[in-house]
Amino acid sequence: MDNPVRQLLEDVKNGKVSVDEAVLKLKKKPFEDLDFAKVDLHRGLRQGVAEVIYGASKTPEQIEKILAAMLANGQKRTLITRLGEETCARLKKSFDVEYHPEARIGLTGGMPEPDGNGTVVVVTAGTSDLPVAEEAAVTAQALGNEVIRLYDVGVSGLHRLLSRLDEIMSASVIIAVAGMEGALASVIGGLADCPVIAVPTSVGYGASFDGLAALLAMLNSCSSGVTVVNIDNGFGAGYSAHLINHAEVKK
Amino acid sequence: MDNPVRQLLEDVKNGKVSVDEAVLKLKKKPFEDLDFAKVDLHRGLRQGVAEVIYGASKTPEQIEKILAAMLANGQKRTLITRLGEETCARLKKSFDVEYHPEARIGLTGGMPEPDGNGTVVVVTAGTSDLPVAEEAAVTAQALGNEVIRLYDVGVSGLHRLLSRLDEIMSASVIIAVAGMEGALASVIGGLADCPVIAVPTSVGYGASFDGLAALLAMLNSCSSGVTVVNIDNGFGAGYSAHLINHAEVKK
Amino acid sequence: MDNPVRQLLEDVKNGKVSVDEAVLKLKKKPFEDLDFAKVDLHRGLRQGVAEVIYGASKTPEQIEKILAAMLANGQKRTLITRLGEETCARLKKSFDVEYHPEARIGLTGGMPEPDGNGTVVVVTAGTSDLPVAEEAAVTAQALGNEVIRLYDVGVSGLHRLLSRLDEIMSASVIIAVAGMEGALASVIGGLADCPVIAVPTSVGYGASFDGLAALLAMLNSCSSGVTVVNIDNGFGAGYSAHLINHAEVKK
Amino acid sequence: MDNPVRQLLEDVKNGKVSVDEAVLKLKKKPFEDLDFAKVDLHRGLRQGVAEVIYGASKTPEQIEKILAAMLANGQKRTLITRLGEETCARLKKSFDVEYHPEARIGLTGGMPEPDGNGTVVVVTAGTSDLPVAEEAAVTAQALGNEVIRLYDVGVSGLHRLLSRLDEIMSASVIIAVAGMEGALASVIGGLADCPVIAVPTSVGYGASFDGLAALLAMLNSCSSGVTVVNIDNGFGAGYSAHLINHAEVKK
Amino acid sequence: MDNPVRQLLEDVKNGKVSVDEAVLKLKKKPFEDLDFAKVDLHRGLRQGVAEVIYGASKTPEQIEKILAAMLANGQKRTLITRLGEETCARLKKSFDVEYHPEARIGLTGGMPEPDGNGTVVVVTAGTSDLPVAEEAAVTAQALGNEVIRLYDVGVSGLHRLLSRLDEIMSASVIIAVAGMEGALASVIGGLADCPVIAVPTSVGYGASFDGLAALLAMLNSCSSGVTVVNIDNGFGAGYSAHLINHAEVKK
Amino acid sequence: MDNPVRQLLEDVKNGKVSVDEAVLKLKKKPFEDLDFAKVDLHRGLRQGVAEVIYGASKTPEQIEKILAAMLANGQKRTLITRLGEETCARLKKSFDVEYHPEARIGLTGGMPEPDGNGTVVVVTAGTSDLPVAEEAAVTAQALGNEVIRLYDVGVSGLHRLLSRLDEIMSASVIIAVAGMEGALASVIGGLADCPVIAVPTSVGYGASFDGLAALLAMLNSCSSGVTVVNIDNGFGAGYSAHLINHAEVKK
Amino acid sequence: MDNPVRQLLEDVKNGKVSVDEAVLKLKKKPFEDLDFAKVDLHRGLRQGVAEVIYGASKTPEQIEKILAAMLANGQKRTLITRLGEETCARLKKSFDVEYHPEARIGLTGGMPEPDGNGTVVVVTAGTSDLPVAEEAAVTAQALGNEVIRLYDVGVSGLHRLLSRLDEIMSASVIIAVAGMEGALASVIGGLADCPVIAVPTSVGYGASFDGLAALLAMLNSCSSGVTVVNIDNGFGAGYSAHLINHAEVKK
Amino acid sequence: MDNPVRQLLEDVKNGKVSVDEAVLKLKKKPFEDLDFAKVDLHRGLRQGVAEVIYGASKTPEQIEKILAAMLANGQKRTLITRLGEETCARLKKSFDVEYHPEARIGLTGGMPEPDGNGTVVVVTAGTSDLPVAEEAAVTAQALGNEVIRLYDVGVSGLHRLLSRLDEIMSASVIIAVAGMEGALASVIGGLADCPVIAVPTSVGYGASFDGLAALLAMLNSCSSGVTVVNIDNGFGAGYSAHLINHAEVKK
Repeated sequence: MDNPVRQLLEDVKNGKVSVDEAVLKLKKKPFEDLDFAKVDLHRGLRQGVAEVIYGASKTPEQIEKILAAMLANGQKRTLITRLGEETCARLKKSFDVEYHPEARIGLTGGMPEPDGNGTVVVVTAGTSDLPVAEEAAVTAQALGNEVIRLYDVGVSGLHRLLSRLDEIMSASVIIAVAGMEGALASVIGGLADCPVIAVPTSVGYGASFDGLAALLAMLNSCSSGVTVVNIDNGFGAGYSAHLINHAEVKK
Repeated sequence: MDNPVRQLLEDVKNGKVSVDEAVLKLKKKPFEDLDFAKVDLHRGLRQGVAEVIYGASKTPEQIEKILAAMLANGQKRTLITRLGEETCARLKKSFDVEYHPEARIGLTGGMPEPDGNGTVVVVTAGTSDLPVAEEAAVTAQALGNEVIRLYDVGVSGLHRLLSRLDEIMSASVIIAVAGMEGALASVIGGLADCPVIAVPTSVGYGASFDGLAALLAMLNSCSSGVTVVNIDNGFGAGYSAHLINHAEVKK
Repeated sequence: MDNPVRQLLEDVKNGKVSVDEAVLKLKKKPFEDLDFAKVDLHRGLRQGVAEVIYGASKTPEQIEKILAAMLANGQKRTLITRLGEETCARLKKSFDVEYHPEARIGLTGGMPEPDGNGTVVVVTAGTSDLPVAEEAAVTAQALGNEVIRLYDVGVSGLHRLLSRLDEIMSASVIIAVAGMEGALASVIGGLADCPVIAVPTSVGYGASFDGLAALLAMLNSCSSGVTVVNIDNGFGAGYSAHLINHAEVKK
Repeated sequence: MDNPVRQLLEDVKNGKVSVDEAVLKLKKKPFEDLDFAKVDLHRGLRQGVAEVIYGASKTPEQIEKILAAMLANGQKRTLITRLGEETCARLKKSFDVEYHPEARIGLTGGMPEPDGNGTVVVVTAGTSDLPVAEEAAVTAQALGNEVIRLYDVGVSGLHRLLSRLDEIMSASVIIAVAGMEGALASVIGGLADCPVIAVPTSVGYGASFDGLAALLAMLNSCSSGVTVVNIDNGFGAGYSAHLINHAEVKK
Repeated sequence: MDNPVRQLLEDVKNGKVSVDEAVLKLKKKPFEDLDFAKVDLHRGLRQGVAEVIYGASKTPEQIEKILAAMLANGQKRTLITRLGEETCARLKKSFDVEYHPEARIGLTGGMPEPDGNGTVVVVTAGTSDLPVAEEAAVTAQALGNEVIRLYDVGVSGLHRLLSRLDEIMSASVIIAVAGMEGALASVIGGLADCPVIAVPTSVGYGASFDGLAALLAMLNSCSSGVTVVNIDNGFGAGYSAHLINHAEVKK
Repeated sequence: MDNPVRQLLEDVKNGKVSVDEAVLKLKKKPFEDLDFAKVDLHRGLRQGVAEVIYGASKTPEQIEKILAAMLANGQKRTLITRLGEETCARLKKSFDVEYHPEARIGLTGGMPEPDGNGTVVVVTAGTSDLPVAEEAAVTAQALGNEVIRLYDVGVSGLHRLLSRLDEIMSASVIIAVAGMEGALASVIGGLADCPVIAVPTSVGYGASFDGLAALLAMLNSCSSGVTVVNIDNGFGAGYSAHLINHAEVKK
Repeated sequence: MDNPVRQLLEDVKNGKVSVDEAVLKLKKKPFEDLDFAKVDLHRGLRQGVAEVIYGASKTPEQIEKILAAMLANGQKRTLITRLGEETCARLKKSFDVEYHPEARIGLTGGMPEPDGNGTVVVVTAGTSDLPVAEEAAVTAQALGNEVIRLYDVGVSGLHRLLSRLDEIMSASVIIAVAGMEGALASVIGGLADCPVIAVPTSVGYGASFDGLAALLAMLNSCSSGVTVVNIDNGFGAGYSAHLINHAEVKK
Repeated sequence: MDNPVRQLLEDVKNGKVSVDEAVLKLKKKPFEDLDFAKVDLHRGLRQGVAEVIYGASKTPEQIEKILAAMLANGQKRTLITRLGEETCARLKKSFDVEYHPEARIGLTGGMPEPDGNGTVVVVTAGTSDLPVAEEAAVTAQALGNEVIRLYDVGVSGLHRLLSRLDEIMSASVIIAVAGMEGALASVIGGLADCPVIAVPTSVGYGASFDGLAALLAMLNSCSSGVTVVNIDNGFGAGYSAHLINHAEVKK
């Protein structure tokens, strides 16, 4: 790559550019240079793997435009989260989108082969936590992770959870999804020896305060190795699990 | 016991007291009389069993006076909760008080023989929950309950809890004491088939918000059969457990 | 009931199954077995008495499938809570469901004869608290408890409450249901000598914060013997009341 | 009373003061004058009756200076609230101050004869609510109200409250002081036919959240005729009670 | 009135009733007697003046029945609060109801002549506070108070408020209705010399948290003589203002 | 100007007005006089520049009337905020209104030429923050400010923000609009050397608590020079920015 | 000031430094350079004017070191906020520090001559708000602003505030400091035509929740032109006021 | 290991144990067996590496006993968190403890050689966040991780952070520690391509609400790949970072 700073210095040396001009340019441009560097680095998702569109607050038109631009740009795989069924139906007219209704995720480019270090295990306390769990699971899959789902194994029937001890103990990362009192995260955290990402859900009523009870419980987990994401943030958990499951030896 | 109302009626019948006088006395004193009647009814603590003094917001002088009055009144057993060691030392000069330092409870009249239907099992998540658990346990004992203590069996090491399954499954009432995320109550509630009284404690820091996290978790327990008392309210849990363990067939 | 573990052991003893095979089966299935064992232990709801389906977050199809499976499994009585009238109408096409509209509970197998130790008294502050109170009352009835309803006896007209002192004083358990300031629980707690389960409701506006005011009030009750469940959790109160009212001498 | 504005106008009329001078004085001093005028209007505390100094955030020196100025200004009676015992001892060296330790109020000029329309009844739930109740009671007395104290009549022992029905029903205003669940205000509000001012106190622990539980309960009172002041604001309740008890026919 | 207690005592004296029987009756009935006494006393609203139905959580059928019963019972004036226009239209078919749409109040029996000590002044900060203010104003009018309305005089344009100083200064009670920051109550409290009842409204957005900001502000008012009711509780303010404006000399 | 106080004094001197009458007038009128002075001063928006109607809680009829009155009064430019598209369509029948749909602002009198000291830069974190940002931007423009929009430059892609350093560093005022974690305000505050007005938006879900997270973050900004307005209060930010950008040398 | 980047470029031009060396230096140090550059840009505090040390969480040793470094670096004026009296006494041994005890600010280099566009007016509701107000006032003064103090002019005595209308109306920026209900900000905002910075203080008790009530009130101010800083953040208000008062025409 | 289940089956087969006895043992012991399995598995910290004692709520005696037991048990390395300096001094009398005062951690067995996949980078916003950051850093080091510290690089001076871009971009895990508005986590999350663990600290005042502001901000981070632990929970962050940095390929 041509180093623009070097070029500028050569120009200063050669008298093509005055010192004053060069000062101005250097003052104005350091961040631009940084900028170019950033494009490659800042997501860890290299071109051709997967780019994410957060669909929640976008109009169908906006999503269409962004998607079209990405595909035109050679993007192989795209993940559209918080995507309603109707909007997806509309997208399907122009794009080859695979829809995951429970996860509310649209995917272009198809599911990749898993290439992580191990498995991402997604555990839920109840059936109502399923949409959030699926957002996490499909996100992780679309980013190249093998996902095992253990659903409806909440702590009120501990035997259900204990019967799946094998999967829990052999996971690389566990995503523990629970509403109400969120106790699942602590129990999983006590059983597993890998990182646990706790996702509080807004499932519950009354003093669950739309997920606050589960959130606080998870933040106060007595088990080590548990970190927490926002209420109902399945995508965030899936994404972080992906990063952990794709950790490389960097020495 | 002499019933003052009955005595008054006898006096009216015998002409010792005029109807007018009796009307006045009944009008003036019904609630006092009701009061004495209440002692029998409203607490389930019969004369000679145990009366409770909440020591937290009382001066040593006030406690001394109340205690002296109770003993003068023939009260056999007295329970003074939230009693500091110093105040107790002072009480010991005049009264025969047995002090339970962890529970911060003073007791006069000695521990009674247990006469409940079964055992009250007090379970704690960690060692820091001990003072609250002891307040519950000593309260229950002083009211005539056999108490089994299972301490430091929090869900981060599930095996500790599961190794005590026998006691949990044969309890009449369980008091589950936990701070931080309060998951213990839900796990116990899922294992036991008796009423569970959950006591959130103020143990924790940061987003435990002095017990709020545990309180909300317990109120949202996914396990049936769990009810909750105030943060750190060991006495309340012990008292309610006592009522449940002394339930009689009322048909 | 045939105990599958016992059967396996008999088979080992009789040489029908080798020790290796038995080890494998026990290793593979302990939790399933435990699961069956649990049914007996953890709920106190014996086969043929009543099983509960929480209807709130389930689709009609899901409820139909679970119900069909239960009935096929020989379940005599089933309780479906938070069941909308329309969903129930749909269930009625295939099942013999008795609907309690105020309680929003569907019941199969009919109401049992009460077999508890005494009566469960359900008290409400106002008429708006009725749906929650009915959820508690019908739950308790369906689990085999005699229920007495004292509705609209809030503390703003104390005479209404005091006129029902007899029922209050002879109860085995009282469920006190109130929104707004939730004072009912404390007043009942001061009058009764049995366990009181307080149910805050979301009735109110402004600074009731959807039941928070009543919840906090009940948790801070100055009366002993009061425990609390989640806001609007009529089912939980009915279930705990049932456990208390069916307490057995376990000595 | 000499009205400085009236005096100035008289002087203008009599030619003692020129119009120009008067314009200047009125322009320069209107707010001081208004200020003095205000004393008459906005507090209902006539010169010579009582002026209030809020002692909480003032240094002893500041209080001394203000008090000295007031007395120099002919103020007959002064009320210093939230006044510590030590600061009062210091004040006593220079001033004739009567100290009410429970109320933490210092008073100069002595207690006036009551001149209100009826009695102000101050009711407390427990003994811990006493300092707040005394602040209310002494404030009301110092402003010229007859005060009846009914202390420790909380709703956990309803008979204590009902035995004082006469005082409650004949009050002109009732100040209901309670911490914990604050149920007292609703019960009093249901019994009385006069305005009730509810004062939540910070008495309690855990989920009382320093008086929040009582505050919310009181704001949500199901009884009509109850208004609320800030947590622990005994002075405010006493002051408002005074205004109500000194209402005049203004037609 | 025949005193049933006296009669019973006479019967005991005359031997018509045995002492045992009398004890039983006295134990069972004190609260009933109290009950009868209460009907007359507990609201201060004598038969023929005004009875209130809280319409918010009642079905049209329930309101119809209660109203019919009241009228049949000789009730002259009835106030139905939180009454929707449609429900009122339905009531009008059977009853002579006068509807106040802004206040959402239905009234039977017509407005009475004012008979209070002075005027109730209802002040609002903005036009959005009008429905709450009207609930307060119509309530006060229907209970027999002369009401002056000063609307849209919020503190952002202080001159609007100051131009109505006369009404403010001559009021017997002021009801200050404001949402957003609720500053109106403090400013009014500083100007007036009569009791001020502050009504926070849910008008606002964002950090007004549905009226919480105004509520807290009003509870912390730096002006003496201000008491507070629940958010949007116009009725409660009108009712309390009525009690204050009808205060009698009780000496 | 004729000084009414001087006139009154002359009248007193000349005997045209009695002292009593003058006292009354002086008591009644100081605020009226103040009042007249105020009309001119209190907004800083002189007649003919721009007057604002807050449309949120007003009926179309109310807005029509206010607008008609303003125009009749010679008002050249009017800003109607929180104005729905339908209501605006209705207004357009009678008035010449220019509608800004994203900002939800209607404008009469057309956009003025910018006459401020410099530029107001409006920055948003994401596209969802756009409506609030537009409310701020259009408000500022309508009040006579040059506005530069830098949208969708949130901190998760710092290069986007840094690439616009020039505009940020040359702004007179910056309005930083962000939901979720609101970090934009701090980063902008660290880069800029002009006042920054932070506007938290309700964009987000779960623990954003409708903008509370962003609000708290902005209030705690570690960067100096940041002040905050209410959640979603684009108008307030635009208005304050206008005041700052029109600051004059007042020495 | 010597610009190190310019110097480097000169050296490149003159051949003193090779292009390679210069590239390395620019790559290695851009942020240090930027850092120095930043001093000029990001604070608006020119070398020799004032640099700020936040003293709250620093040890005396840390403050000494930073201060020594600054002075060694030629810094003419330094502002140390949240500086305790004892720590300042220690600093005075080595440095020439002028201490402002109420503001808890230490200053080196002496107060500058005011050079802003106009006056910064600091207004407080009560005397308890003084320390926060002084932090704001001294900060503004030390940054070169003329400050007018209007203390203890809270809205409970509106005349006190109105008597200072002149100063309020001629201000360039107003800092309104108030605890309790924070109404002062709205009243000031309604009176003034310049930007108002509202500073909530933690003055108050009970439902003031350590300044939350005032904070919410100020955020919801009905007056335009009011922005808010953190509770007790006098420094932030003074700093923002300084920026506003030093606004330059940037066209 | 001898498989106790196999032994039991052999005994059943051989008639040494009856079927009934075996059923009982199997019912009682499955969890015990699980228990033994757990010791090895549940922490991922193998004997000889590091065991953790949470020192916060333990007496010096308790810590001594636990530590002695661990060492006696052959534990090579022990980490005691939240350990006061005095308690550590006492421990040093009997044990070879290395104290890290900023981290408040005691360590026995010395620091291990790092053996993780890469580096753990600990970043703080300000100097006040240091103790929490050190708790995280020392924990990670003691568990065998290479740690890089980047302290005091908060977003108010973005250049400080950007100058350390290299370390940030080459990290395996980043721990972002920040109080106040917690913006650091989002900025780091936008720059890095590895998992980021955000630790809110209680640094701040006023509306930081002891770390709540930072906590909420971090949970709402607009950057992907950020998970959160409890306020001030440096240990938890260090522990989770360790798990991530020691991830193995498990395929």
